[in-house]
Amino acid sequence: MENSPKAIRCKAAVCRGNGEPLLIEDVVVAPPKAFEVRIKIICTSLCHSDLTFWRGQAFSQAFPRIFGHEAYGVVESVGEGVEEVAPGDAVVPTFLSNCGECRNCLSEKNNICTTVPFRVQPGMPRDGTLPITDAEGQPVGNFLGVSSFSEYTVVDIAQVAKVDVAIPPEKACLLSCGVSTGVGAAWKVAAVEEGSTVAIFGLGAVGLAVAEGSRRRGAAKIIGVDLNPEKFEIGKKFGLTDFVNPTEIGEKSLDEIIKEMTNGGADYCFECIGLASLMKDAFYSSRMGAGKTIILGVEMHGEPVSIESTRLLEGRCIMGSLFGGIKAKSDIPTLAKQYLNEELRLDGFITHEVGFKDINKAFDLLVQGKSIRCIIWMDQ
Amino acid sequence: MENSPKAIRCKAAVCRGNGEPLLIEDVVVAPPKAFEVRIKIICTSLCHSDLTFWRGQAFSQAFPRIFGHEAYGVVESVGEGVEEVAPGDAVVPTFLSNCGECRNCLSEKNNICTTVPFRVQPGMPRDGTLPITDAEGQPVGNFLGVSSFSEYTVVDIAQVAKVDVAIPPEKACLLSCGVSTGVGAAWKVAAVEEGSTVAIFGLGAVGLAVAEGSRRRGAAKIIGVDLNPEKFEIGKKFGLTDFVNPTEIGEKSLDEIIKEMTNGGADYCFECIGLASLMKDAFYSSRMGAGKTIILGVEMHGEPVSIESTRLLEGRCIMGSLFGGIKAKSDIPTLAKQYLNEELRLDGFITHEVGFKDINKAFDLLVQGKSIRCIIWMDQ
Repeated sequence: MENSPKAIRCKAAVCRGNGEPLLIEDVVVAPPKAFEVRIKIICTSLCHSDLTFWRGQAFSQAFPRIFGHEAYGVVESVGEGVEEVAPGDAVVPTFLSNCGECRNCLSEKNNICTTVPFRVQPGMPRDGTLPITDAEGQPVGNFLGVSSFSEYTVVDIAQVAKVDVAIPPEKACLLSCGVSTGVGAAWKVAAVEEGSTVAIFGLGAVGLAVAEGSRRRGAAKIIGVDLNPEKFEIGKKFGLTDFVNPTEIGEKSLDEIIKEMTNGGADYCFECIGLASLMKDAFYSSRMGAGKTIILGVEMHGEPVSIESTRLLEGRCIMGSLFGGIKAKSDIPTLAKQYLNEELRLDGFITHEVGFKDINKAFDLLVQGKSIRCIIWMDQ
Repeated sequence: MENSPKAIRCKAAVCRGNGEPLLIEDVVVAPPKAFEVRIKIICTSLCHSDLTFWRGQAFSQAFPRIFGHEAYGVVESVGEGVEEVAPGDAVVPTFLSNCGECRNCLSEKNNICTTVPFRVQPGMPRDGTLPITDAEGQPVGNFLGVSSFSEYTVVDIAQVAKVDVAIPPEKACLLSCGVSTGVGAAWKVAAVEEGSTVAIFGLGAVGLAVAEGSRRRGAAKIIGVDLNPEKFEIGKKFGLTDFVNPTEIGEKSLDEIIKEMTNGGADYCFECIGLASLMKDAFYSSRMGAGKTIILGVEMHGEPVSIESTRLLEGRCIMGSLFGGIKAKSDIPTLAKQYLNEELRLDGFITHEVGFKDINKAFDLLVQGKSIRCIIWMDQ
């Protein structure tokens, strides 16, 4: 094949150990193989899942590794068999695949593609290979099949969604993971109903996006729960009507407070932090009869969630979702369109912006709880 | 009011202590107050929930008490405000109420009536009174607002469903609790789909009824899990296609076996025993993506169910139901009609029949796992 893509030498932010600052290094990015796409990353962002794996507390600690999975970029080249996108197309990579052909992809009920399985271990999803090597020629682990903290990266075509070029890069970047997860959880997983009550535990980007999704679905009461009182003002933009600071509820338990505020329990509860104890609180805050609790946070200590089965018998349901039930190929373009039509609010999620060389600042801001989303621009 | 009903002296099987044999005693049954119905019990049956509370391991131990909540009878008299049934009507009492007017009763989504709340403590649901007294004039606790182990009993009108007199008493009795719970769980809670896979953990009356409900919904594979291999033959009548004896699976775990049999996990798992560890097994046996686990068993030791939240994130859901989502007033007559039309199979659930004086034999048979349902005839 003439003009077949060559390896690209570029910069990437490599993590060489648990919780250590990332190092901007020279890396070599292999050409895309069959069903792969090489993307020039324009901007990326830092999500809590990056932090969880960077800290390495509960999951496979494989270093060196290039983190990052929330991003926006332009297709640089494509491998054999890729017809859906072409060089120059605007795309967002996604950590969850969407082959469009397996039983789950064809089902309206869920978004867990089985052709290109989700994996937390390094390696491309179809063959486990590592397309990026360091200056010494040693392979560098990728992350969730994306590794967007690199000027160029290789992603499986099942993990690429094409978006309208009209959407600004930093807004499209938000749709790549966190915001889509939250909006999708309210829209596709919970299917929040008009006039219902919603309680959101944790007001990071995902939690705020759940509020936005619930607002769009017509929820009557949207309660935010967070330790940081400033989140109430931010959340109001996204439909938050009430706020609870768990440190200011005195003798009462969190679920007692939520039950009081919702006449017996919220119709929909969302856990957006990743703490087993909070998952339990969320579940106990849900309404007897048909209360639904949706888990979106990745438990940060690997603790199991423990609940009284009698609360289940009373008609409550607890479920979880990766990526808020979003099917990358169809739903992300829909969300982009809703933003362009001013139906979906994306302003307010981005609190900081830094250049690629300052990527560790983005980590500091998120660790300290100062940022919701910090956009990292690759060309700065 | 002329001809107002008087107290009735009759026989009841009274439990005077944790796990002690019932004593047939003379009792006095008060006339029905407003919104109450006095029923002459024709036949009753013993359900596992009776056993759980009789043993008193995990719940309020209030003795003396009259157990029994699965029954069939004829209305003897009605209190003020009761217009729905009249003396002579064939009815089944139900442990769960259905006022027909509260938000939950009006919702398609659940069956937890809030007007006449479900209570495990003795006492009539609206005012906590005890309509039955013993020979010494001391009040005797009722059970789930029913207490059908008595020749006459008083039940709230919200807990009474009228049935077609054409259905034989012992068949109607089955619809009062266990069989309706199982069939309803497949029909209304899980909404089992055609061609799907089902795993049922525990093949008592409820588990077998889940099979029957799943068969009627067109499930392609219905796996029964039970320690008693004889249950496979019995279960085949109700659509069981496969059987697993957990003591014969060697090194593998139960969820591994179910996953192997269902190409990755069952679409619907039902726990019908009431063991936290089995609830976990059931949940882990469900399919990644959209697997649903429905808890029907009342945990017999009060143990919480503990699950890895990552399994939730993969799209699994765990929920529970009292009475399988059945709304007594509308769904029980529907099931009775289905039986009369030979659509719903009720033959095979009744394995034993005894007279009221031998009620303790019914306990022995269920404790020893020998019976599925033992009908207790009040006039024998």
